[in-house]
Parts: sequence; structure tokens; C-alpha cells
Amino acid sequence: MEELLEKILAACEPFVRQGKLADYIPELTKADPNDLGICIQSSDGRMRHAGDYHKCFTIQSIVKPILLLQALMDNGIASVRQKVGVEATGKPFDGINYTEQALLSDHINPMVNMGAIAICTMIQGRTYQEKFQRLLSLTKRLACNPDLSVNEAVYLSEKRTGNKNRALAYLLKTYGMIEDDVEQVLDCYFRACSIQVNCSDLANIGFTLANHGRLPISGERIFPSEYGSYVNAILMTCGMYDGSGEFAVNVGVPAKSGVGGGIMAVVPTRMGIGIFSPALDEKGNSVAGIQVLKQLSQKLYLSIF
Amino acid sequence: MEELLEKILAACEPFVRQGKLADYIPELTKADPNDLGICIQSSDGRMRHAGDYHKCFTIQSIVKPILLLQALMDNGIASVRQKVGVEATGKPFDGINYTEQALLSDHINPMVNMGAIAICTMIQGRTYQEKFQRLLSLTKRLACNPDLSVNEAVYLSEKRTGNKNRALAYLLKTYGMIEDDVEQVLDCYFRACSIQVNCSDLANIGFTLANHGRLPISGERIFPSEYGSYVNAILMTCGMYDGSGEFAVNVGVPAKSGVGGGIMAVVPTRMGIGIFSPALDEKGNSVAGIQVLKQLSQKLYLSIF
Amino acid sequence: MEELLEKILAACEPFVRQGKLADYIPELTKADPNDLGICIQSSDGRMRHAGDYHKCFTIQSIVKPILLLQALMDNGIASVRQKVGVEATGKPFDGINYTEQALLSDHINPMVNMGAIAICTMIQGRTYQEKFQRLLSLTKRLACNPDLSVNEAVYLSEKRTGNKNRALAYLLKTYGMIEDDVEQVLDCYFRACSIQVNCSDLANIGFTLANHGRLPISGERIFPSEYGSYVNAILMTCGMYDGSGEFAVNVGVPAKSGVGGGIMAVVPTRMGIGIFSPALDEKGNSVAGIQVLKQLSQKLYLSIF
Amino acid sequence: MEELLEKILAACEPFVRQGKLADYIPELTKADPNDLGICIQSSDGRMRHAGDYHKCFTIQSIVKPILLLQALMDNGIASVRQKVGVEATGKPFDGINYTEQALLSDHINPMVNMGAIAICTMIQGRTYQEKFQRLLSLTKRLACNPDLSVNEAVYLSEKRTGNKNRALAYLLKTYGMIEDDVEQVLDCYFRACSIQVNCSDLANIGFTLANHGRLPISGERIFPSEYGSYVNAILMTCGMYDGSGEFAVNVGVPAKSGVGGGIMAVVPTRMGIGIFSPALDEKGNSVAGIQVLKQLSQKLYLSIF
Repeated sequence: MEELLEKILAACEPFVRQGKLADYIPELTKADPNDLGICIQSSDGRMRHAGDYHKCFTIQSIVKPILLLQALMDNGIASVRQKVGVEATGKPFDGINYTEQALLSDHINPMVNMGAIAICTMIQGRTYQEKFQRLLSLTKRLACNPDLSVNEAVYLSEKRTGNKNRALAYLLKTYGMIEDDVEQVLDCYFRACSIQVNCSDLANIGFTLANHGRLPISGERIFPSEYGSYVNAILMTCGMYDGSGEFAVNVGVPAKSGVGGGIMAVVPTRMGIGIFSPALDEKGNSVAGIQVLKQLSQKLYLSIF
Repeated sequence: MEELLEKILAACEPFVRQGKLADYIPELTKADPNDLGICIQSSDGRMRHAGDYHKCFTIQSIVKPILLLQALMDNGIASVRQKVGVEATGKPFDGINYTEQALLSDHINPMVNMGAIAICTMIQGRTYQEKFQRLLSLTKRLACNPDLSVNEAVYLSEKRTGNKNRALAYLLKTYGMIEDDVEQVLDCYFRACSIQVNCSDLANIGFTLANHGRLPISGERIFPSEYGSYVNAILMTCGMYDGSGEFAVNVGVPAKSGVGGGIMAVVPTRMGIGIFSPALDEKGNSVAGIQVLKQLSQKLYLSIF
Repeated sequence: MEELLEKILAACEPFVRQGKLADYIPELTKADPNDLGICIQSSDGRMRHAGDYHKCFTIQSIVKPILLLQALMDNGIASVRQKVGVEATGKPFDGINYTEQALLSDHINPMVNMGAIAICTMIQGRTYQEKFQRLLSLTKRLACNPDLSVNEAVYLSEKRTGNKNRALAYLLKTYGMIEDDVEQVLDCYFRACSIQVNCSDLANIGFTLANHGRLPISGERIFPSEYGSYVNAILMTCGMYDGSGEFAVNVGVPAKSGVGGGIMAVVPTRMGIGIFSPALDEKGNSVAGIQVLKQLSQKLYLSIF
Repeated sequence: MEELLEKILAACEPFVRQGKLADYIPELTKADPNDLGICIQSSDGRMRHAGDYHKCFTIQSIVKPILLLQALMDNGIASVRQKVGVEATGKPFDGINYTEQALLSDHINPMVNMGAIAICTMIQGRTYQEKFQRLLSLTKRLACNPDLSVNEAVYLSEKRTGNKNRALAYLLKTYGMIEDDVEQVLDCYFRACSIQVNCSDLANIGFTLANHGRLPISGERIFPSEYGSYVNAILMTCGMYDGSGEFAVNVGVPAKSGVGGGIMAVVPTRMGIGIFSPALDEKGNSVAGIQVLKQLSQKLYLSIF
């Protein structure tokens, strides 16, 4: 298996040159565009890895399914569903050109920025500091890594430059989807996006989703099975930005990417996969990362279709 | 099993009153809104059914995956993918308010009218009569029913009133995505939508998709396995119109609905399901049909997530 | 005055190289991109001209205000206003990405293709041949030119390639704004766009609009004064495609351009201006033509603001 | 003349019941929906009035042409034009569903909120307090009223609830059209909208625009003639929100309305008109105010078309 991973990484390495680093958060441009790593947590309890699997990067949008999980754990499916829809938007993750009609119906989902920002308000906690701490705790447990922390430089960089997210948040506030102070909600969101992880962390989180709520090895249940199905279904239809349809066809498993270069893939009942390669395509997905998953899916028959 | 089906149908029957018949094709308003039937073809080779499973209705949009299959069989994945994208549009099935940018990129897929009309041009055949005959033959084989035919009244009704589809087709022609005569392409499309089926037919077609190309019972291979994955993945992300996200969360299997009241569901490796109940919700999906699938999914653990 | 015209033409001649010929109607690419001519009909009864003022070209969108006039003469303001709105669309003349909401409200106007096609249906006449003949008669009278005729080559070229207009017309039909046969309506529209004119014709038509319905010299009343105000107001806000705001600021008079290279300008109570220069900017307006009008407006204080 | 005004007011008074008070700024709901007043400043130096012409209300969007004037006086036409376009948007004044393409091209103008907010950044002044004071000074001079001041309650109400404007401003910031602190820019904008005026003030401001920069009576020049034409042209195409086309057809003069119930109309070379009637139609224009102008235009032949 490790041999297969090495082989696939070697085959996909040239793809890093087809992408480029995210540049809308200045701090992200400091990554090494040649990095490529993978880690797989399987149902046999073993963790396999290859390449730059130990390198750290910020979780970015991959925190969106964790935000959703926390909101589900705090409120149940019905309340979360009432607040934020589940349909694909047909737009980029930071799309703002919604008609009022679309905004007030269900065409915002937790995997686009607007939906994820709205989800932040549903986490329990008296303050947004407390809400964030609860999210961070959940992330640590899912990643089986008590040492996770926020990359302060990225957090401050996002906070300083995140004006598109401010626009989206004030739009949510205009339509009553946020009641709290926008800057506080966004502070929680920016911190959440800046949690630093590596491929093993993502593999563990992905595995727990694949395992419907039970951690790898210990088998401890973190969340009810139906929350896992809810999140996985949304990852399938909307997890890879407006490239989710292509990914479904080519790889065929629920997954979530982030502009930090990470991809977390969920192979139901079988494995969690964490990938890191920060050179992105135009939609914000890791170019080489997708290629690795495509080849892995073919070799190991991962597609659920 | 039959008992379970009877029970679920009884429980879901009241939902027919929440929907209404499609009225944009005059002929469709003649259906009985109280009809509700189901048929399941399983990998054990047995066919189970309940309710109005034997009633006939027009296939409508459920022909879209078959059009796609025929195009894949005639051209391979690469050519088909180049012509028509795979991303969700975030719009209704007959949405026309595409920017030129969206049209020329990949935001048209084979499960919305525009994409399906474009797919018609990719079927082999010297004439559109011939193309349609090949499609009908494939449909008969997949349905294991050599007696399928076109409902002439519905076909003529669609042809007479299908001006939105004409607008969509001329838009395709404007941007070079159709080269042939629009009325001929549409004639093929309208005939395809007017093929008359019942629940057993849909169950058999769904089963062959679930079985990656092999017919029920005989096991005869109709199409290569990868075409099945391609179609199933698109059904997952776009098969239930702009209610696909909700369906993924609530039922969790690839499926396709039609405004004739049919739903074809594909449970990979396990079963094909055909449902008929012509009272539709606002998005064009059978209200009671979705409820039946939701309950069935919970009872039989059908979700792939 | 003729001297001034010559001087302005010489100064503006270099601008022809910044534009290019319309290419979406194949026949239009046969024009000479260096042509530049002007003709002014003033309230003193004199006609002045310079440059290629005698060259013929197709009227294209400049027929839209004449279509509107004919519809007003046949139905009155109230009926016409009920059918087609008067607000700027914020889109190109052949924009199709209207939401259903916009279509059914008032955001279609007679100076964009969709509105002009709808207007064709309001002209009196048992057949569309008859409707067109009435339009042609009105155009001849307004132009004080009984010899106007259709450029058959352009007409056939438009009819063959006008698929965007077909899409727009079928969209109108979908929403009940056209009841007649689409191809017949379009035939009238394509013929109307293909009427061949020169700068003098446009100057006379423009003068009659400036003169609130009375022909130059004879003073014969062709239409009631209020129809002139209605048309001129719409020309002001929507006559120069999505460059109407810029034109209002820079020139300041009602005007209509066509992709054949013509511009007809209306200086209320003072003059009608016809310009020809077929090299167009990105919005479909004659580049040098606009420059000529800008300089003329400054020299002769034409702006009504 | 005063008699005519009284008669028209009496005839239009019933229309107040067709509108309703603006409710998105809580403080505005305190107005009396039955108020109706008018004031006309003519080139003969006389001021006529009728009805509730002395009542005070907040200027709201009618400050937009003054913001534009101040920006023109501080930067010239070329710089202002480069920053903000002049085309109608085809959307409501607070529309946010712009594509990135539209934002970066010219489809934002100074009469919609986004454009007006961008214009605030172009006023000279070291601080936004200073910028606002300069705007207030200009407004006082144009209104010939040194006592104008901000309605603090409305200002605070706007500041507290103006989240749509915050969204628009952060969107401008995202695309580099604002560099300064958004809250400071908005503070200037909210104060500007909250300047309290009456019908005489609007009549005087309108007259100075009609008079191309010279004050009534004294004839003192406040701004160059060409700035007047620039502003009047934009008022013509975009001054009455997405009802500007209708207003051009029915009234035929440049005008600007505000959700406070005011309308300022500019009859070039002849008069400035101020109207107050706070019951608004769906687009945000004073219902009775538009009727008054319509009748006045017919009686006095005000239309410039």
C-alpha cells in the first residue's frame, strides 16, 4: 500500500506545476507549491502515508464540515436544516451575486462561505471565543490530535483582508440570517479557517466521518451516525466547490478541499484520506491532490457509484 | 418485503395531496393525482411491487440518463464530457438565465434540459429518426421490455407547447453547441421524453445502472462499468433537479425524477427502484415518491453515505 | 456649417480604426470599415451633409423606434406600454439571462431585441407580410424616400443565422408575450432590420421625431406629438444599447444606433442627424459616429441637459 | 401659477394612499403619509409653493447628485468617470447581485448606493468628518439655506441598521474600489443621507442644476456648466431608481427621488422643483410626487423630449 502511494505521488507530482498558490490571503502565498503528501487511515486501524504528509497547513474550508457537525451536535438536523439549505449553488464558494429570492430560499449551503458563516452562529457558547473553543475541541478529538492550534499569522491575514466575507456576512445580516455582531461572527470563522493541520489530522477526521461517528482505533462514538450521513451527502454534492460534479464523476467519494491546499476524502465504511498540495486550480481545489485521489480511486475501487 | 412496501405506501399516500400534476404539458394534466406505485428489482433476481406499479406514464426527464448512456456508448466519456459539463447549475431544470460565461464553460449538465438536448446530437444515426430509434432500442433493453413505445398524445402535446425548450435549443445553437436543425433535434428529444413506461421498467433500468451495466437475471452486459459510474455520479449531484441536495441528505442514492411522476432510484450493487406518483412538488419531483424513498432508505439502510 | 461637418469628420476619421465590423451577421462584414458620413436636417428646412453620406447600409436596430411608432399609431400608448416596458435592462441588446421575475415585470423595453420582437406582434395587418409592408410604408414616409427597400442578402443572412433572436422569441412565446408563429414574427423583424437606408433617410426620420411628428419642409403631421415624446424619452434612456448612459453624458440627445453602422440622433425642435460609420465598439455602437456626435454637440450646444 | 399648484395637489392627494412609508430605516416610519407639498423656483426669480412645502424631511438619495457634484468639483469629470460608471444597472438601488464582470466594468453608477458610496471617497478632506462638512457646505450653498443640518435620529437609525450598505461597501472594498476604512466611508454616507431639507431647499438645488451652475437670484456660479450637464444627464437615465424609464416617458425631465419622500426635478434653463410626499411606491419613489410632476409637466410643457 505504501508502495502504491509512493508510485501515485510520483506520477502526480508534475501536476503541481499546473496550479498556483491561493493569493487572496497574503499569508498563504508563503507555502511551497511543490509540496505533495498523503495519509490514509483505514478501517483495519492502520495509518499509511507518503510524501510531505507531516507538513502543516491551514485547514481553511475543510473546517466547514466540522462547523456543520458542531452545529448538528448542538441543535439537531431540523434546526440546522431550517437555517441553511443543502442545494448546490452553481457558483464559486465566495459568490455574492444571489438574487434576494435565492437568499431567502434554500440556495445557500454549509459548504459555501455564506452558509458556513451562518453556521458559526449556531454553535453553542456564550461568546464567540467560547463557540470557537468548542469547535477547536471537536476538531482535536476528530483529528485525534490534542495539539492543534490556530496559525496566528494566517488568522490575522484573513481578518485584515477578508472583505468579501464581510460583504457576505452583512448580506446575511440584512436578511436576518445573522443576528449577532458581524465582526465577532467573522472572528470565529477566520480563526476556524486558520486551524493548522497535517495530512494525518485530515485522514483521522475523514475516517470518523467514513465510520459514521466512531473514532479510528478506539471506536469511541463522537457523533450520531445520521449526522455523518448528513455531512457526507453534502460533501458529495458540494464539497469540492463548483468542481463537485467533476470530482463525483472522477473520484466518486465525499470530500472537502480548502484553499490551504488540503483535501479530506471520506470513503464510507472504509477509509479517511488526507492530502496536501497547495498549488490550486481556478476553482480553488488542489490540482495534484485531485489527481492523486483519481488514481487512488481507480486502483482501489473507491467510487461509491 | 412486499409487506414493507405496502406499509410504506399506505404511510406515504397522504402526501399525494401536497403535490399537483405538471401542467405545462397539457396532456400530463390527465393523470390521476392519487396514483402511487413502486417496484424493486434486487440483486437476488426478484422483483417486488406494490400499489399502482403497473400503471403507465411517460418517462420524461428519466430518459436523460439513458440519453447520456447512449451518447457515452456512441462516443466515449471524453467526447461527451467535452460537449456537456457535469456541475450542478443551481437553477431549475429549464432555467434559461445563464450568462454567456456560464454557457461556454461547464455549467450545463446532462440532467437539465439544455444539456440533454445537446446530448441528443451525440447519438449515432444518419437521421434524428434513426437516433431516436437507437435510443428507444437501448431503453427497451435496459427495461427488459420489448414493448415500450411513445405516447403519441404526450409527444404531440410537448411538440406543440415546448417553446421553452425551443428557446434553450436555439441558445445552444447560438453558441455552437448544436449544429443540426433545431426542430429535428427537439423532435428526437420530445419523443424521448414521451416514451411510456411503468414502475417495473424503471426498476430494471435502475438495476442495470446499480449493477454497473449488467441486466438483471441474465447478467448480460449492456454497457461498460465506467459508464455506469459516470451516470450514477451525475444522478447523485443533479438527478433530482434543484432538489438533489435535499434528496442526497434524505435518501442518499443516485436517482432521477421526471415530471410524468416517475422516479428511478439506483442503489449501487443492490437494487433498482421504480416509483410512480404524478403529484409533484414545486421543483418537479414526485412528492409522495420522495417520501416513499426516504422511508425505504431508512428501513433498508440504502444511503451510500 | 458644411465646413464644420467636414472638419469634424476629418478629426474623427482616425476613430474608425478603433472599431470593427459587426460579424454576427455574415453579410455585414462586407462593409467598408473606413466609411464615415453625416447628414443633418435642420428646422430651417435645409439639409447639410459631408463624407460618405450617400452610402447605403441596413437600418438594423434603428428600425426599433419606427416599429415602436407604428405600434403606438396602431394601438395607442396604453396598450403598447402594457405589452412592453420602458426601463433600461442593464444588459446587452441581445441579453437572454433574464430571471422569470424580470421577464414578467417591466424590464424588457422596445430598444432591446426582445422588446422589439414583441412590438412586431402589435402592428396591424392580417399577415406578417402586411404588417411589414405597413412598417415599410411608414419608414418611407418618415425618411421622405419612397424608394426604400429591403437588402435581400442581409435579410437572408439574418434569417439564416439569427438563432439568438429565435431563442429570445421562443422565450417570449413561453411567457405568453407572443401568441403568433415565431418564425413569422421573426421574418417581419428580420426584414425590418434589413431595410436599406442612407444618412439622409436617417436625418429625415430623426427630424420628424425632433419635430414631434411633422415632416421636414412640408410640415405634414405623421404621428401625434405625444408619440414623439414617448419615443424620444426611450431613445434617451435606452437608445444606445448599454452605452446609453455614456452617450447621455457625452452627447446629450436622444439617439438610436444600429449594428449596420448607422446612428440616428434627435435634437428636439432643432434637427435630425444621420450618421454612417460601420466600425463598431464592443457594445455595438459606431465608434467614429459617436465621436462625431460628441464634437458636434459641443460645437452646436446640442445637449438638452 | 400658485392656483395651478393647489389644483394639481388636490387632484393628486388621493395617490398618497397607494404608497407606504419606507420601513427599512425605522426612523422613517414616523413621517405622516398624508403630507404633500411642492415648491418651484423659476428663472424669473420667483418661488411658488403649495401644500406642506415647509415640512422637513431627510434628503436621502437626493444627496447623490450633490455628492457627485462635490466629487466633480474636487476631481474633474475624467477622474470621477474612471471611478464610477454612468450606465443604468437594471436593478434596484440597493441591488447586490452583480457579477464580478459587471462590478469591474462600468455598470455601477453614482445614483445607486454602491456608486454613491464609492463617490464619498473622492471628496477632498483629510478625514471623513471634513469630507462630510464640505459636502454639507455645498448643500447649504445650493439650497440657499445656511441652516441645513443632519437629523441625528435618522442618521443613527441608518448607521445602526444599514447592513445592506455595509455589504455593498465591503464588496467595493473587495474589488479595490474603496481603500479607506469602510465604517468611516459609510459614516459620511449615512450623515449625507440624513441632511434635513424641505421643498424650497430642493427647488433651489434643482434650479441651480437647471441653470447650469448659477444660483437663483444672485446668479452666482457654484460649479462649471459642464458638471451640470453631466449630473443632469445621469439624473435623466438613472435618477428615479429602476423607474427612471417610466419617469422619462411620463414627465420628461431629470430628477432624483429619495426614500424620505422627496423629489428634486430639474427643468433645464427653466426651473427647479422640490416635492415632498413620503408615501412610496415599490421602487422607492413618492407615489403622489410623481403624479404631481406628471400633471405639471403636461400643463406647463416641461418635457425636454
